[in-house]
Amino acid sequence: MSARITAIYRVKDSAANIEARAKSIAVEQSVEMPVSAITKRSVLENIVGEVQGIRDLGGVFEVSIGLAVSTTGLEAGQTLNMLFGNSSIHADMALQDAIFPKEVVRAFGGPHHGIEGLRKRVGAGSRALTCSALKPQGLTPAELAELAARFTRGGIDCLKDDHGLADQAYSPFAERVPAVAAAVRGAQGKVPTRYLPSLSGNLDQLRRQIEIVREAELDGVLIAPMIVGLASFHTLVRENLDIAFMAHPAMAGAAHIAPAFLLGKLFRLLGADATVFPNHGGRFGYTPEECHALARTALAPWDGIKPTVPVPAGGMTTNRVTEMLDFYGRDVMLLIGGALLAAGPRLTEETKAFVDAVHAHGKVLGKG
Amino acid sequence: MSARITAIYRVKDSAANIEARAKSIAVEQSVEMPVSAITKRSVLENIVGEVQGIRDLGGVFEVSIGLAVSTTGLEAGQTLNMLFGNSSIHADMALQDAIFPKEVVRAFGGPHHGIEGLRKRVGAGSRALTCSALKPQGLTPAELAELAARFTRGGIDCLKDDHGLADQAYSPFAERVPAVAAAVRGAQGKVPTRYLPSLSGNLDQLRRQIEIVREAELDGVLIAPMIVGLASFHTLVRENLDIAFMAHPAMAGAAHIAPAFLLGKLFRLLGADATVFPNHGGRFGYTPEECHALARTALAPWDGIKPTVPVPAGGMTTNRVTEMLDFYGRDVMLLIGGALLAAGPRLTEETKAFVDAVHAHGKVLGKG
Repeated sequence: MSARITAIYRVKDSAANIEARAKSIAVEQSVEMPVSAITKRSVLENIVGEVQGIRDLGGVFEVSIGLAVSTTGLEAGQTLNMLFGNSSIHADMALQDAIFPKEVVRAFGGPHHGIEGLRKRVGAGSRALTCSALKPQGLTPAELAELAARFTRGGIDCLKDDHGLADQAYSPFAERVPAVAAAVRGAQGKVPTRYLPSLSGNLDQLRRQIEIVREAELDGVLIAPMIVGLASFHTLVRENLDIAFMAHPAMAGAAHIAPAFLLGKLFRLLGADATVFPNHGGRFGYTPEECHALARTALAPWDGIKPTVPVPAGGMTTNRVTEMLDFYGRDVMLLIGGALLAAGPRLTEETKAFVDAVHAHGKVLGKG
Repeated sequence: MSARITAIYRVKDSAANIEARAKSIAVEQSVEMPVSAITKRSVLENIVGEVQGIRDLGGVFEVSIGLAVSTTGLEAGQTLNMLFGNSSIHADMALQDAIFPKEVVRAFGGPHHGIEGLRKRVGAGSRALTCSALKPQGLTPAELAELAARFTRGGIDCLKDDHGLADQAYSPFAERVPAVAAAVRGAQGKVPTRYLPSLSGNLDQLRRQIEIVREAELDGVLIAPMIVGLASFHTLVRENLDIAFMAHPAMAGAAHIAPAFLLGKLFRLLGADATVFPNHGGRFGYTPEECHALARTALAPWDGIKPTVPVPAGGMTTNRVTEMLDFYGRDVMLLIGGALLAAGPRLTEETKAFVDAVHAHGKVLGKG
């Protein structure tokens, strides 16, 4: 028998129809043609998707389908294609989860650094990490550099480009990155703040940007896997063992894919060292349960691959630090962007207040 | 004033809240930070998104936001990021359409061949085009080649790989493509059938695959832009002026983006010569109105760029040919896959019946 990935879908359908529907999903996500017309035995046995289980969750069914690993070619994009390509078009179903056999996990490999790697870089011990975002777009490299220096003086662990910063005329990547990197280095105090430039474009452009990142002596980047494509993302991860990758959820939320699976599991499988997601109670609609599941999935033991740091974000404020750390525990990176920028001339002080709140909480827990 | 793309969203919100909501979308899709904290005048004037209109459609609002062209860097992925990156995470809104200024249309360039180019290749005059799909996966290159010959003998215009065919061990791209191409050439009758191999992987792999396509003397490919990433898709289009690109909707349907916009307009802008989509009344849930809007969008006059052929598919049968041609008119490519494969030993005859039905309909209309 050939190895299978178990894809788990939530499907809205009638009890009378669900068995037939499950079979049709198994066909849609594998051979995509009438099974009766397939005469080759090995295709019927090893390629056609198989219904592994149907569970009535009350109003919605959980359908588990075994998809042949061989159909993925162990390529990132094709794996998503097999998991959800055509079925994504159905409004009444969602990809809830997938269970990958060890050979798939080993082939994709997961993060190279993960939470412990990121903590070591900034000397964070076992405390939670802090992050902010460099914006707005429209500023010049010099203006962004000046802003970055002020964040750095506040002692932030990671400063990422806004995911909207790309390679625009008003702030070309090749000028912005060295300017901001120099400013961050020049302003560093006790915390060796990491600046993570945002990558964009095709694989050629992404590779050139990583070269610029290296030349600027940086060791981490921000990337939106659903924008650049999973293949580009995974290729960069495999080519750059020393670079930490923070994944951004742009275009990920729309996909009828459970956030815990896409942002917590699939991005981790493909090598995200950290994964940004909208925290509950912010500007976006994820529930506390979804956020908890996402963080747990990113961190859970998984066939020896490293844990990914969950990075809740999206309208967070310093007065939520205690609540968020109580909710997520210490294995987390808190990202506050706009609320710090809103402080205007007091940006460094507000950053320091955020950083102090996280460090203090870490210390108390550290004694426990 | 800087040039703006008008992004049009459908938003479910209360009448009391919609103005504030529209402003928040304008901010989310541009600077993504409190506007009050922005001191630079050029950012406020030229970068921050602007609410251009709000229309009450009854139960849902149409919100038009002007997004600065400069924020896109005229790069495909970043353009989608600016149109819908973060807002895609909101379950209560969809990207309905976007109006691109001429400079954007000119920069991306649209299809190189479009409907007339594809018709010319197969000598179709002004009739509708026909298409079928090579599958199931799991067959060897020789088996697929044999199947392709039988389709070709039926006189099909285009034969595309199933979008599930990638670069798998049981049928490596480098073996499959020359084998199928040779079989198609050998079986050609009056119609010079075009075989379109399915591309997958990262940009390096995609480019190698296009080389193999050229070596096999083919001039068209199938590609799923939402799987390989818009940047990879557009890069390939620009690098291969002589290759026709048929776009596949895998992972496109899930995205809370109106099909007419994504598959009909954005894929066209980036260079799709043909765009496959689920026809109404098949295996997927698009309505007749959505299908009609998609086809119209793909074909409408648009700043001088070529029209994209709409390719309705997904559970179609030969007995629907007349109905479909009455619905879409002649500027269409009908794709019947599984129903022809289901004919087993009579595949060539069933293909011929499909082809004849389309040709006959075309002739009648041609006299009109």
